[in-house]
Amino acid sequence: MLKKSLPLSKVYQLLEPGPVIMVTTAYKGKANIMTMTWQTMIDFVPPIVAIVMSDQNYSFDLLKGSKECVINVLGVELAKQAVGVGNCTGATVDKFKKFKLTPVAASQVKAPLIDECFANLECKVIDMKMAKKYNLFVLEVLKAWITTAKKRERTLHHCGKGVFVVDGKIIKLPSKKM
Amino acid sequence: MLKKSLPLSKVYQLLEPGPVIMVTTAYKGKANIMTMTWQTMIDFVPPIVAIVMSDQNYSFDLLKGSKECVINVLGVELAKQAVGVGNCTGATVDKFKKFKLTPVAASQVKAPLIDECFANLECKVIDMKMAKKYNLFVLEVLKAWITTAKKRERTLHHCGKGVFVVDGKIIKLPSKKM
Repeated sequence: MLKKSLPLSKVYQLLEPGPVIMVTTAYKGKANIMTMTWQTMIDFVPPIVAIVMSDQNYSFDLLKGSKECVINVLGVELAKQAVGVGNCTGATVDKFKKFKLTPVAASQVKAPLIDECFANLECKVIDMKMAKKYNLFVLEVLKAWITTAKKRERTLHHCGKGVFVVDGKIIKLPSKKM
Repeated sequence: MLKKSLPLSKVYQLLEPGPVIMVTTAYKGKANIMTMTWQTMIDFVPPIVAIVMSDQNYSFDLLKGSKECVINVLGVELAKQAVGVGNCTGATVDKFKKFKLTPVAASQVKAPLIDECFANLECKVIDMKMAKKYNLFVLEVLKAWITTAKKRERTLHHCGKGVFVVDGKIIKLPSKKM
């Protein structure tokens, strides 16, 4: 997918709506993908993000070891793959191959971008003080990419038990703030 | 609005999709409302949630002082009020009066429920270690309420600069996990 650099000041516009994301990690020759929806913005610029990743996940050790990851934001057309990725473990499955997701080299981190995702955020872990107690990692987004395609991407939001709501209509209301 | 108790095990289904919420606080005779969308689940049961509230907000001191709040989840019909609440400060405005939002006594905390919101989560702050550096508060949901109405509520997701996406169609995909 053809992509362009996205100003870091616009990263919050991708994560603030709470989309389902896929997080890629790489460490000591292993790479993996995890589907996730427990994330929040912490600050605008530089973009600081918190993600919650259970230590039961194969990706946990890769993230902890490498202190890097990529947040890949997906459109509804990748819904099946995202659920598939969430239903198996990287300990026994090469998820890139199994779900035909293409790893592309990132510019700032070793974890790969997922080519099929319309936006990719290259992140480094900047704080692990809450990783042990809450599985919460604080990330800084170093570099952001977004598709050059003009069509509006519809993201997914997970409502539990395999039920997802897809982005519907847009409304605009004057806001003084961000 | 007529409401019933919601099992704590289902709270994540409300917050995981990343809806715009309104957080109510009360401390030393003052109560306030803040519109927010920087929140994430941390754990399922008991439901543990992180919210990021800037110290520039009037609600920050009320939350820090009282160590309690209510997360009020709103449907699209409250969009204008939610933006209005976000565009003024409780330091000079009684937002309940100005936006015709009805405070209702909570069962576990002093902060009020907003009656017009279809779900209300009574929360206590359980960890403020990241409040100073990241404005991040860890909350435990003590009690949850949900409307008895059967119609599907459409929540809002903020995409920045007053642009919101409203919940669209539902898709179901088999998931082995939560």
